[in-house]
Amino acid sequence: MFNETPESAWQLRFGTTPADLPDLGAFLNHRSVRKFRDEPVSEALVSALIGAAQSAATSSNLGLWSVISVQDPVRRQQLTALTGDQGQVKTAPWFFAFLADQNRLWRASQAVGESAAGLDFNEFYTMAVIDAALAAERMVCAAESLGLGTCYIGALRNDPAAVRELLGLPPRTVGVFGLCLGWPDESAPAKIKPRLSQESVWFRETYDADVSAEEYDRRMSVFYEAEGMKGDVTWSMRSARRVDGNHMTGREVLKDFLTEQKLDLR
Amino acid sequence: MFNETPESAWQLRFGTTPADLPDLGAFLNHRSVRKFRDEPVSEALVSALIGAAQSAATSSNLGLWSVISVQDPVRRQQLTALTGDQGQVKTAPWFFAFLADQNRLWRASQAVGESAAGLDFNEFYTMAVIDAALAAERMVCAAESLGLGTCYIGALRNDPAAVRELLGLPPRTVGVFGLCLGWPDESAPAKIKPRLSQESVWFRETYDADVSAEEYDRRMSVFYEAEGMKGDVTWSMRSARRVDGNHMTGREVLKDFLTEQKLDLR
Repeated sequence: MFNETPESAWQLRFGTTPADLPDLGAFLNHRSVRKFRDEPVSEALVSALIGAAQSAATSSNLGLWSVISVQDPVRRQQLTALTGDQGQVKTAPWFFAFLADQNRLWRASQAVGESAAGLDFNEFYTMAVIDAALAAERMVCAAESLGLGTCYIGALRNDPAAVRELLGLPPRTVGVFGLCLGWPDESAPAKIKPRLSQESVWFRETYDADVSAEEYDRRMSVFYEAEGMKGDVTWSMRSARRVDGNHMTGREVLKDFLTEQKLDLR
Repeated sequence: MFNETPESAWQLRFGTTPADLPDLGAFLNHRSVRKFRDEPVSEALVSALIGAAQSAATSSNLGLWSVISVQDPVRRQQLTALTGDQGQVKTAPWFFAFLADQNRLWRASQAVGESAAGLDFNEFYTMAVIDAALAAERMVCAAESLGLGTCYIGALRNDPAAVRELLGLPPRTVGVFGLCLGWPDESAPAKIKPRLSQESVWFRETYDADVSAEEYDRRMSVFYEAEGMKGDVTWSMRSARRVDGNHMTGREVLKDFLTEQKLDLR
């Protein structure tokens, strides 16, 4: 259903007209979908998409991620309450919890008589988070290529201990984000959201700390107003508020939780 | 050049014949490419691919990642030495360093008179690593759809302080992985690597700690032998060695480095 041309998607994303754009329509057309049609996504299709996720790169082929699909309505209801009452967590045809998972490799190490002592290092937590995200994004791109829509749920980190209990997570695992999946509701299409200019994000040879967010603030204010939000509260102001330490939505516990789970210890 | 059918890719990946596979060929066909043709990838094409990366989801639209392209031959040579002397870091037509980047938002916060005190939390480090990986994998999928090949370089974390100096990284940033990009050398095609069975990675409703790696060990031993490696040293044995704490390739410093960079503080 999302069929902006690459040029149109680029215009909406960056406010500029690109020269010479290759046919990357599906990859430029991403948006978070929160309203889904009441139409199932088959088990076979989900299996194929998870096969795509598994085809992503994984560092040293260690495979430090897992995914749990949650379809039981009661568990879905509980998850919705744990993730800030976002309706799509309850209503999406499929919900997946992506895990940074060192437990499987810890068990494999134990089985061959090794300690897996290195898994204590932050390095392997970082690696596991990367692995989980690479897998999920390949799954998302594959899903979008078939016309499906998705929405990541960072709020899976709002109450990591409750998520651990609900999903039976063992030590050395943590739920890093959720993912809703289904066929987009065409009566409530999601919009392409503007992004920072390419000059703000892509540097040549060395980092450039001189770029400012002013140009993006102006573009985002137009977007906010079109969405019925206040345009004079800029992206910088909204984002600064999000990271001021007073809007952590429970996630201030994450470091202690990781320690409890025997992750990111040193 | 990688044109296995979805069914053939699935067979190579999982050792099973799938029923009812949708046309996800490009997404199932991933492999790391380390040999590239001596043929440039245009600036315009790279810009489009970075546009795809920027189109990936980013938590709360905070955009906590950046990318630095490194093309200067001297700097490339230095990077190669810093990342375990992997030839593709030197020879790939493009090399990108992906950053978890909280500096840009810290500056935007300062510009509107806010503290950004929340960025001290592990939560935002985790979020930034996820953002960087989602962006990179969308770029990789887009590149592969055009026939390009890629190789992630986790070894960018081998000596994070030297990478900081080489790329001029300010506080609140860290290089999380590199990415090589180019046209695959058809005379040295990379192979699809087998992955864990789907039952080992995809759980229903709750975590399953009973699955073992034995089946995967058997499949990987066949792959190792076909690659000229010892088949009696299993995936479990190789992976257990990788995480035994004695093969950290410098990355044991990552936690202290993050503290120095004002990341993952609490």
